Amino acid sequence: MHDTKSEFVVEPWQVREIGMHPGNLAQSESVFALANGHIGIRGNLDEGDPSGLPGTYLNSFFEQRPLPYAEAGYGYPEEGQTVVNVTNGKLIRLLVDDQPLDLRYGVVRHHERTLDMRTGLLHRELVWETTSGRQVRVRSTRLVSFTQRAILAIDYSVEAIDHPVRIVIQSELVANEELPVTSKDPRVAAALKDPLVAEEHAASNSRALLIHRTRASGLRMAAACDHVLHRSDVDSHTYVEPDWSRTTIGTQLKPGESVGFTKFVAYGWSSRRTLPALRDQVDAALSSALHTGWDAIVEEQRTYVDEFWDGADVEVDGDPVVQQAVRFGLWHVLQAGARAEGRAIPAKGLTGPGYDGHAFWDSEMYVLPVLTSTAPNAARDALRWRQSIATLAAERAKTLKRKGIAFPWRTIAGQECSAYWPAGSAAFHINADIAVAAARYVFWTADDEFDRTTALPLLVETARLWADLGYHGDDGHFHIDGVTGPDEYSAIADDNVYTNLMAARNLRYAADATERWPDAAAKLHVTEAEVADWRAACETMAVPFDDRRNVHQQDCGYTDHDVWDFVETNTSDSYPLLLHYPYFDIYRKQVVKQADLILAMHWCGDEFTPEQKARAFEYYEAITCRDSSLSACTQAVLAAEVGHVELAHDYLTEAALMDLRDLEHNTKDGVHVASLAGAWLALVCGLGGMRDHHGQLSFAPALPKGISRLAFNLRWRECKIRIDVTHERTTYQLEDGSDSYIELKHHGEQFVLHVDKGVSFPAHTPQPLTPRPKPPVGRAPIKAGSLD
Amino acid sequence: MHDTKSEFVVEPWQVREIGMHPGNLAQSESVFALANGHIGIRGNLDEGDPSGLPGTYLNSFFEQRPLPYAEAGYGYPEEGQTVVNVTNGKLIRLLVDDQPLDLRYGVVRHHERTLDMRTGLLHRELVWETTSGRQVRVRSTRLVSFTQRAILAIDYSVEAIDHPVRIVIQSELVANEELPVTSKDPRVAAALKDPLVAEEHAASNSRALLIHRTRASGLRMAAACDHVLHRSDVDSHTYVEPDWSRTTIGTQLKPGESVGFTKFVAYGWSSRRTLPALRDQVDAALSSALHTGWDAIVEEQRTYVDEFWDGADVEVDGDPVVQQAVRFGLWHVLQAGARAEGRAIPAKGLTGPGYDGHAFWDSEMYVLPVLTSTAPNAARDALRWRQSIATLAAERAKTLKRKGIAFPWRTIAGQECSAYWPAGSAAFHINADIAVAAARYVFWTADDEFDRTTALPLLVETARLWADLGYHGDDGHFHIDGVTGPDEYSAIADDNVYTNLMAARNLRYAADATERWPDAAAKLHVTEAEVADWRAACETMAVPFDDRRNVHQQDCGYTDHDVWDFVETNTSDSYPLLLHYPYFDIYRKQVVKQADLILAMHWCGDEFTPEQKARAFEYYEAITCRDSSLSACTQAVLAAEVGHVELAHDYLTEAALMDLRDLEHNTKDGVHVASLAGAWLALVCGLGGMRDHHGQLSFAPALPKGISRLAFNLRWRECKIRIDVTHERTTYQLEDGSDSYIELKHHGEQFVLHVDKGVSFPAHTPQPLTPRPKPPVGRAPIKAGSLD
Repeated sequence: MHDTKSEFVVEPWQVREIGMHPGNLAQSESVFALANGHIGIRGNLDEGDPSGLPGTYLNSFFEQRPLPYAEAGYGYPEEGQTVVNVTNGKLIRLLVDDQPLDLRYGVVRHHERTLDMRTGLLHRELVWETTSGRQVRVRSTRLVSFTQRAILAIDYSVEAIDHPVRIVIQSELVANEELPVTSKDPRVAAALKDPLVAEEHAASNSRALLIHRTRASGLRMAAACDHVLHRSDVDSHTYVEPDWSRTTIGTQLKPGESVGFTKFVAYGWSSRRTLPALRDQVDAALSSALHTGWDAIVEEQRTYVDEFWDGADVEVDGDPVVQQAVRFGLWHVLQAGARAEGRAIPAKGLTGPGYDGHAFWDSEMYVLPVLTSTAPNAARDALRWRQSIATLAAERAKTLKRKGIAFPWRTIAGQECSAYWPAGSAAFHINADIAVAAARYVFWTADDEFDRTTALPLLVETARLWADLGYHGDDGHFHIDGVTGPDEYSAIADDNVYTNLMAARNLRYAADATERWPDAAAKLHVTEAEVADWRAACETMAVPFDDRRNVHQQDCGYTDHDVWDFVETNTSDSYPLLLHYPYFDIYRKQVVKQADLILAMHWCGDEFTPEQKARAFEYYEAITCRDSSLSACTQAVLAAEVGHVELAHDYLTEAALMDLRDLEHNTKDGVHVASLAGAWLALVCGLGGMRDHHGQLSFAPALPKGISRLAFNLRWRECKIRIDVTHERTTYQLEDGSDSYIELKHHGEQFVLHVDKGVSFPAHTPQPLTPRPKPPVGRAPIKAGSLD
Repeated sequence: MHDTKSEFVVEPWQVREIGMHPGNLAQSESVFALANGHIGIRGNLDEGDPSGLPGTYLNSFFEQRPLPYAEAGYGYPEEGQTVVNVTNGKLIRLLVDDQPLDLRYGVVRHHERTLDMRTGLLHRELVWETTSGRQVRVRSTRLVSFTQRAILAIDYSVEAIDHPVRIVIQSELVANEELPVTSKDPRVAAALKDPLVAEEHAASNSRALLIHRTRASGLRMAAACDHVLHRSDVDSHTYVEPDWSRTTIGTQLKPGESVGFTKFVAYGWSSRRTLPALRDQVDAALSSALHTGWDAIVEEQRTYVDEFWDGADVEVDGDPVVQQAVRFGLWHVLQAGARAEGRAIPAKGLTGPGYDGHAFWDSEMYVLPVLTSTAPNAARDALRWRQSIATLAAERAKTLKRKGIAFPWRTIAGQECSAYWPAGSAAFHINADIAVAAARYVFWTADDEFDRTTALPLLVETARLWADLGYHGDDGHFHIDGVTGPDEYSAIADDNVYTNLMAARNLRYAADATERWPDAAAKLHVTEAEVADWRAACETMAVPFDDRRNVHQQDCGYTDHDVWDFVETNTSDSYPLLLHYPYFDIYRKQVVKQADLILAMHWCGDEFTPEQKARAFEYYEAITCRDSSLSACTQAVLAAEVGHVELAHDYLTEAALMDLRDLEHNTKDGVHVASLAGAWLALVCGLGGMRDHHGQLSFAPALPKGISRLAFNLRWRECKIRIDVTHERTTYQLEDGSDSYIELKHHGEQFVLHVDKGVSFPAHTPQPLTPRPKPPVGRAPIKAGSLD
C-alpha cells in the first residue's frame, strides 16, 4: 500500500539527502525543518527558489479568518485561526558572474544536505557550475537555537573552485511571500493573502528590522537580522523597505578563495506588547547572539542536544532503518516542544502549515507521553498552556450548556476552531486526555507545585464536565452518550470505551487530587458531594461488551453493525476512505480509521484481562484500515502486548517512517509529530512493554527477530532509568539523582531497583493467545526489515 | 406557549383583514399570497410600499449559489439553489393631487382585504385621505388564474369621494427589486443581489415586455403586461427600460367618478427555449387573457375552485375557527399544487422565500395524501416531477456509492442542495416517502398508465437503494444503520422504525409492481432474485422494541438514552431547542422535535397493535416538544386513534392555525403548506380515522365535544365518497362515477357502499387504554375552542 522509496541515506545519527530531487522538495523542506518550539523554519533552500512551500512560523502567531457554513448551527465557531508564514529571515541569494544561483539552471555537480541530530545543525554543501562553466562551492550551516530561543543563525560561505568569479551575496528579510491559495472561499483567501501589515522598518550597518501586524487577529511581530562577515576586506550595505530588507556583499574570488558571513535572525511577537518593546526585544536578542558568536552558539546547541539524548536516546541494534527513524522522531518531538514554554504543540510542530497550525488531542496522548519521560519540562509547559486557556474552555463549556470546561478540539490560541462538530466538539475525550496527561506528568516528576496549581484545577474542571456530560442509567451504569471517540470513522456514538475509561480515570484522579490538596480544592469550591459523585460515576462507568462475539465493543452496538466491504475497496483509489466515501456510510459500518478500543487497551490496559486484549486485538485488527498516522504505533504497542512481536515490529516500522518515506503523501505540509512520537511509544511501550497505570511503573520487554538489542533511557523524577533488552536478557539500571531506589515490575514480577545496582532478567518468550491477526486485505503494514 | 391573537376575522369562507397592521405586513403577505402552483405572488399592497417582503415567484425558477464549507467532506454538494424574486407585475402606484398613495402618510379611513376561498379572488377596499384632506376610494381584485396558468390579473379602480381630485395611476413591471440580505457569505449575497440580467425590453400602446436571464443558473424569463381601461376617454402611455416598464394614465375625477383598468400580466420561463420563443409565449398568453376578458376569467376561476371544493371540502360544525382554518389550509394546498404540472411543490408553495424555495419529503408525506384524495391530478403531476429528476437521483446515488436512486433531501431542480448531511443525505426515508406516495396514488386512482410508467420505475429504483443500504444481521433481521428519521432531534441512528417500515412497504410494493408489469419490469432489468431479495428484506425488517419499558424505540437504543430536562428548559428563550442548544446534546437525549415513531404508527399503523400504539403515544407524548410544524397534525391523528379525541382536537387546532395565527413567528417567509395540509389529515385521518393500508380503505370516526359535525368528501377513482359524522351517527355515501360500489371498513367492520345508497352507523365512543398523556411541561398544544 505504500511507496517506500526514500531519498534519504540510512545512518544512525544523520538524515542525509544527496543530489537534487525536485519532486521531493516540499517533503524535504518538512524533514529538514528546524525549530525549537518557539520559532520554526522549513528546510527551504538558502536561495529561496525553487521551493515546495516557503515557511517561517512563530508559535501561536496566527491570522483570524471566517468559518463559513452553508447551514449554520447553534454553537458553531464563527472564526478560525490559521498559522501565518511570517517574515522569512533565512533567505540568502547568490550571484555568480551575474548568474543567480538557482538549481534549475546551470549544472549541479554536488548537492548534499545533512541533518545532524547529534549536534542540532543542518548542513548543506553544494558545488554548482554556471552556464558559462564557472564552479563555486557553497557551504551553509543552519540552526534554530535551543538556548537562545528567539534566534535563528546561518553560517554561509562561497568558494571559487576553478576560475576567478565575481560574487554578490544578498541576505534578506522578506514579508508576505507569495503562497499557493488553499481555500475556495474568497474571504478566507483574502484574509490569508499578504497577512502582514507593515508598521515599521529600519536599517543601520548590516542590521535590518521589519515590524508587522496581522490584520484581523491584531498580533504584532518583529524580525531583525545582522551579519558577521568572515572577512574584514569586504563591505556590506543594507537597504530596507516596509516589506523587505537586503544586505549585500560583493567581491571577486580567486580559485580557492571564499567569502561569507554568519547571519543572525531574531524574532519577537506579542498580542499585547507595544511596538517599541518588540523593537527593543529583537535588537537585544540579536546583540546577545552576536555577543555569543557562531562557534559558541553551536557549542551551546550541542550541549543542549546532548543533555536531551542522554535522557531520551533509544538504541535499536539490528534494524538501522528504525534506528535512524526513531531518532528522527525524537528530534522532531524535541523541536516541537522544547521551548514552547506556555504555548501549544501543534500537530505539525512548526514545520509546515498542515491542519492550519492547530494543536489537537494527539499533543497530550502521543507527544506528551514521550516528553514526560524524556524532557519533562517541555511536557509541563505544554500542560501549563492548557491551563492558560482554561478560561476560554470554560466559556466554550458554557456555550455548549455544560459544566466545567470543554477544551477546543483544534486551536492555536485556545478558541474552538473546529467547523465540523461530529468530529470536533463531540470528541469530548480530549478533556480526559489533557487531565490524564497532567496526572501522568505528576506521577513521573513528583512535581507538587504543578500538581497543586495546574493538575488540580485541570482535573477538577474536566471532572465537572464528565459528571455533567454523563448520567446514571437505570441499568446501574454511568453512560456518556452521543460522543465521538478517537476513531474518526465512527461518530456520535454511545459509551465509547476509550472515552468512558479515560473519563473514569479523569474522575478518579480528580477525586484523589482534591484529597491531596484540600485547601486548593476548597478554593475551587469542590464539595464532598461532588467528589462522591465523581467516584460513583467512575466506579459504575459503562464498558460495552458483546457477549455473543466475546469481544469489547468500540462503542455501544458497534460489533452489531455491518462490516465494511474491504474486498470491494481493495483498489488503488479507495483510501483514505474519507476522500472516496460519504461519512454516513463510513460511520455506520465496522471500519476503524485509527486505534480506538485498542488505544484504550494501551492507556487503560489495567481495565482488561490479557484474554480480552488478545481477542479484541484479533477482532479489531481485521477492520482497522489505518487511514490515520495515529494508528500504527498503537497497533504496535498492543501487538507486542498480546505476543505478536513480529507484527509489532512491522507497525513500529511504519509509524517511524511516516515522514522519512512520506507514507501518507502529505509530509510536504509538515511532519506528523504524533506519529514520530509514536515510534518511541511503539518501541518503549510496545517492545519494552512499559506501562504506568496508577502509580506503578512496569515493563514487559520482548524483541522481534529483526532487532538484536533495544536500549532506552527514561527520566524518572531526579533519576534516569536505563533498560537494555537483548534476546538473552533484560537489564535495568538506575542512575544518578536523589531517589535511591524504585519499585518496578518486569513481566508482572515486582522488584526493587537501586541506584547503580543493575538487575537482570532472562529473556521472555511471548506466548500469543491467538494466531497472528490479519489486517484487511491490502492494508497490511510495511514489512519490517524489508527496506534499504 | 403561543401568542394566538389573530388579525383576521373568523368566517367560514373568507379570510378578512380589517384596518392596517404594520407589524403584521409580512405575515399577511404570505396569508394573502395567490398562486396556482406555476406562478405565485405575495400579498404585497398594490402600491408596493410599505412591504414586509416583496415577492413574485415562478415554480423552479432559481439562481445557483456556492455552498461554503469550512471543513468539506466527500459528496458534499457544492452548489445550492435559491428561489428568485422575479419581475414584479402586480405593482400599481397611485398619485392623488400630487401625493403618492402610501398608507404610512395621510389618513387611512378604511382598509379591508378579503381572501375569498369560494371564488379564488383577493379583494381590497381602501378609503384614503391625503394630507390635504381629499378622500379617494380604491378597489382592487386580484387573481392568479387556475385556468390560464401563465396569467395574473388585477382589476383596479379609484373613485373620488368628496372633492374633485387629480389622479395618476402608474402600472409597472419591476425587475431586481431591493431585498434584505439574508446570507453572511458575500459570494451568496452577491449571487442573489440583482439576480436578473436584462436581455430585452419592448413596449407598444399599453403593453410592455421585459426579458431577463439569471447569471449562474442561466434560466430565462419573460414578463409582459397589458391593460384594459375602464373608460375610453382616458389615455395611457407606456415607457420601458431594461429593468422596468411603466404604463401611466392620468385624469381629473369629480366626486363619485372613478377611473381604472384591468391589468393582465403573463409570465414565461425556460432553461432551454430561445428568447424569441419566450417572447412570443408571453405575448400569446396575454392576448388569450385579453380575449377572455376580466369577467370571463373571474368566472373560469370560480368554476375551477367550485370543482375543487366539490371533492375536497371539509365541514366542521361547532368550531368556526377550525372551519375557517381547514379551508384556508386546503386553499393553500390547492394553490401550491394545482398547476405545478411536472414541477416541485415547495415547502412554502410559491408564497415566500423560506427554505430557499426548496421542496422536501413533506411534499409526499403531508401534501400529496391530501391531493391524492381531493385533486388527484395534482398529486400525479408532483410524482411525475420526481420521476423526471430520477436521472439526477441516480447520479446522486452513485456519488453516495449506492445502487438505485437517492432523491435529494432539499432541492428546486433536482440536485441535492442540503449542506448538512446528518439532516440531509442521511435522511434516506424520503425515497420511501416518494415511492409509497406513488403507490398510494395508484391505489386511489387505479391509474394503470401511471402505475406502469411512473410508479413502477420509482418503486424499483428506490427498492434497489434500500436493498443496498441495509443488510441481514446475524440476528436474522434486515437492518438499516446510520440514517436519520423524520425527527430532526435525532440523527444517524440505527433501525429508525419509521424509515424501516416505510422501506419495507417500498420493497413490498416494488415486488408487487414487478408482478403486475412483468414486461416493463424486465426493461428495468429486474430479476427474480432481486425481487426475492426485496421480499426477504421487508419480511425480516428490524423494528426495535424495548421489552423492559414495553414500548417501541424510535430507533435502536433510543429509550435507553437520557431524557431531556424539560423542567430546566421551561423558559421563554429555550425553544426551538436547536437555536439554543448544540446538536450533540439534542441528538443524544430523548427529546422529539416532530412525530417520528408516531408518524410510523399513522402511515404504517397495520404493523402495530392498538395496545402498542396507546403505549407508544403515551411514552412519546411526554418527550415531544413539537419544535416542528410537521408534528401537531400527526399527534392529532394518533391521539384520535388511541381514543384521546379532545387532545386530537387541540393538536388539530394548532396545526390548522399555524399561519393564520403565525404560531412559529415565521409565516412572513411563506405559509407552511405541509402543516396546512396537516389540518386536513388531522380531521380526515384523525377524527375521521381514515386509513388506506394495503388497498383497504377504512374509517373510524369519533368527534370531540367541541365539534358537533364533521363532513368531508373524497375523490375515489371515478367516484366521490362523502362521510358525515355527528355525535349520533356516521353516514357514508358514494356519489356519481362508474364504480357501482366500494368495500369499506367502519371501526373494523367491513361493509359495502353502493352508489347513491347511504349507509349509517351509530356513533362510536372512544375507549382510551391510557389516561390522557401529558406533553412536556410548557409544551401543551393550543386548547381547542379557546380562541376568538
